[in-house]
Amino acid sequence: MKAELIPVGTEILLGNIVDTNSSFLANQLPLLGIDLYFISTAGDNQRRLVDTLNRAWNRADLIITTGGLGPTQDDITREAIGELVNEDLKVDEKLWQELQELLRRYLGEVPHSNIRQATTIPSAQVMPNRMGTAPGWWVEKDDHIVIALPGPSDEMKMMWQESVVPKLEGKATKGIILSRVVKTFRLAEAKVDEMVSPISKLSNPTLATYINPDGVYLRITAKGNEKTEAQRLIAQSEQQIRDILAAYVWGVDDDTPGSVVGQLLGGKSWSLATMESCTEGLLCSTIAGGRESCVYFKGGLLASCDEAKIACGVDAAIIDGYGKESIQVARAMADTARRNLKTNVGLGVGGNIDSETNSGEAFIGLSSDEFETTFTHKLRGNRSRMKQRAVHAALFDLRKILLEEVQCI
Amino acid sequence: MKAELIPVGTEILLGNIVDTNSSFLANQLPLLGIDLYFISTAGDNQRRLVDTLNRAWNRADLIITTGGLGPTQDDITREAIGELVNEDLKVDEKLWQELQELLRRYLGEVPHSNIRQATTIPSAQVMPNRMGTAPGWWVEKDDHIVIALPGPSDEMKMMWQESVVPKLEGKATKGIILSRVVKTFRLAEAKVDEMVSPISKLSNPTLATYINPDGVYLRITAKGNEKTEAQRLIAQSEQQIRDILAAYVWGVDDDTPGSVVGQLLGGKSWSLATMESCTEGLLCSTIAGGRESCVYFKGGLLASCDEAKIACGVDAAIIDGYGKESIQVARAMADTARRNLKTNVGLGVGGNIDSETNSGEAFIGLSSDEFETTFTHKLRGNRSRMKQRAVHAALFDLRKILLEEVQCI
Repeated sequence: MKAELIPVGTEILLGNIVDTNSSFLANQLPLLGIDLYFISTAGDNQRRLVDTLNRAWNRADLIITTGGLGPTQDDITREAIGELVNEDLKVDEKLWQELQELLRRYLGEVPHSNIRQATTIPSAQVMPNRMGTAPGWWVEKDDHIVIALPGPSDEMKMMWQESVVPKLEGKATKGIILSRVVKTFRLAEAKVDEMVSPISKLSNPTLATYINPDGVYLRITAKGNEKTEAQRLIAQSEQQIRDILAAYVWGVDDDTPGSVVGQLLGGKSWSLATMESCTEGLLCSTIAGGRESCVYFKGGLLASCDEAKIACGVDAAIIDGYGKESIQVARAMADTARRNLKTNVGLGVGGNIDSETNSGEAFIGLSSDEFETTFTHKLRGNRSRMKQRAVHAALFDLRKILLEEVQCI
Repeated sequence: MKAELIPVGTEILLGNIVDTNSSFLANQLPLLGIDLYFISTAGDNQRRLVDTLNRAWNRADLIITTGGLGPTQDDITREAIGELVNEDLKVDEKLWQELQELLRRYLGEVPHSNIRQATTIPSAQVMPNRMGTAPGWWVEKDDHIVIALPGPSDEMKMMWQESVVPKLEGKATKGIILSRVVKTFRLAEAKVDEMVSPISKLSNPTLATYINPDGVYLRITAKGNEKTEAQRLIAQSEQQIRDILAAYVWGVDDDTPGSVVGQLLGGKSWSLATMESCTEGLLCSTIAGGRESCVYFKGGLLASCDEAKIACGVDAAIIDGYGKESIQVARAMADTARRNLKTNVGLGVGGNIDSETNSGEAFIGLSSDEFETTFTHKLRGNRSRMKQRAVHAALFDLRKILLEEVQCI
């Protein structure tokens, strides 16, 4: 089955929002054995949207729109789908009653324009929206399926999981596609590509490399008649990659630099606290945002200025003696975090980030009863990339130390 | 001039990365008087990419591709553009020399596959890439312009600003389009739409509403022969919106909940510190990530568990007496932040976030010599939306108190 995604909204074409829905759906489709060849974004213009829908109809079996299901005049996805399948829209009275109850409960009133969200066409099965007011549509006609999902991404995801996946699972016909991502760090893309070239020419599984903020990723994609066949092909390929790239591999799939550090800390029943300056809270929110992080991550301190560092307990003499951003201060920050939050390990991250020259450096301090060490890293890129790199560098340094410690035991 | 964006990469079609480049470029084009009607994403398949390029050629004057300029076999944008304009690729020896020097400097070696990045066609002018190894292309032929930009977004943005904008400015012909976004909060989209309906039917400027995590936005878009004409139309429309929506408007354009709070604090020369639990560092990274934030934001504490709250100085008796997440604890966290970091204002954010039921509540505590108050908010949505809502609720509560204080003086 071939699919085409059609994100709808002038707000996307004007760059007012970033379309993250397509990335979510693109991830989901292969798991159902569905190929995605095109994503075609259109604005809130009915003629151009109908053109886009027609082209998709000619080259895909499954069309999924996101957005344009709101209550306002510029929400035209319902009308465009009606035009595509040549059916008229009518208010579904039962749906309108339910919608009015919902609006009364949450808003205390019923804006009349919401009636547009209760219109439907004969071929459409309505999919409920537990989180918002826009119901979705499942339209099946002439060997095609057209699915209309709401734009807000948590509503879209919920409707996808609860209503769309169960219906689509029955339709998937032949073979499934699985993919797995192997994540490396501190290697250039062309270098990774050269190293894996002996195994990268196969047509099943295929191998592709691409750059991410936390390193170069390799994506293995396998097709199989059965899930187990695809899994076997992927496992084989992953082992070959691990043999070639060895210590440069730090994770797979949903692993993040934070989660791999968390697993290592968890394995030793150790707790972590952080203190940061130039990374502006990105270090603690990156670590704490991970699943189960509260088991090993007790908390973090962000000190935006020297006074705040000193107020938290960093010795003013170290700041005066070595400069406010220095490896010595990073080490003192690691100690301060560990002491204040009573943890086994402290991680301190400071540095200089210069947005004028797009360059900087990060100072990483690590402290525990077993080890005390510091690292320095050069940074390049814009402000947000440098912050991100400093956070990743700190987590990879911590990972390195934890792996060495584990091996010592 | 009409443009079409073509993001290239199977990693987008498999959902391995989110395409943020399109949103950046979509934002930039109107400033040059260029209309964008379609974004057409294609994978690393030369035939399908050439099809997509051909369609864009027929409906647009300007085609911008992003991605597919890497050194590997699956980077096929150069070949596809060659096929589109019917020209052969050749290695540009001078470019290859420069690239080899760059690679030697940064990697200490020259992977031979990088030679693909030194290939070009006769119609292409090469655009340098200061941040990476992929040069861009500017191709002008038969009244069309085709621009190939690298995929990594900071390389793409730099090349856009330094090489593309100066060239495009000379090409922009008639009229420019400006837009302005007015941001509201605590109103439903349909309600905003009803309230502004008296002014939303105009064709210039146009008005559109859409939902964002921090409220409902209204986008005013005006066309004018001169910049001043478009500016005048927008100013008029903005005033009408402000008259209608009054206190529900909290900002415009690049304003964020953090930046508006920062302006109010700055105006009073007050400093802020935060302490948070369930928002997992998102509160401090949201505030600290803003421009100039270090002037008013001294720092933040993240306590993932009770021990960490107590270690930072929250009275254990309050946690025992009122429950670990409660308005009393939020108020104590505000006090603790203010005391530890020696600031005028303390903001404490706690709460319960239940990913099973997709519901929760946030407790906000505010503390200063002048005021001490708490707020409670119901939360709905998935985990990350609830965290984000708690952070926005806290910042809007702080804004409210600061505005009231300002009016008292």
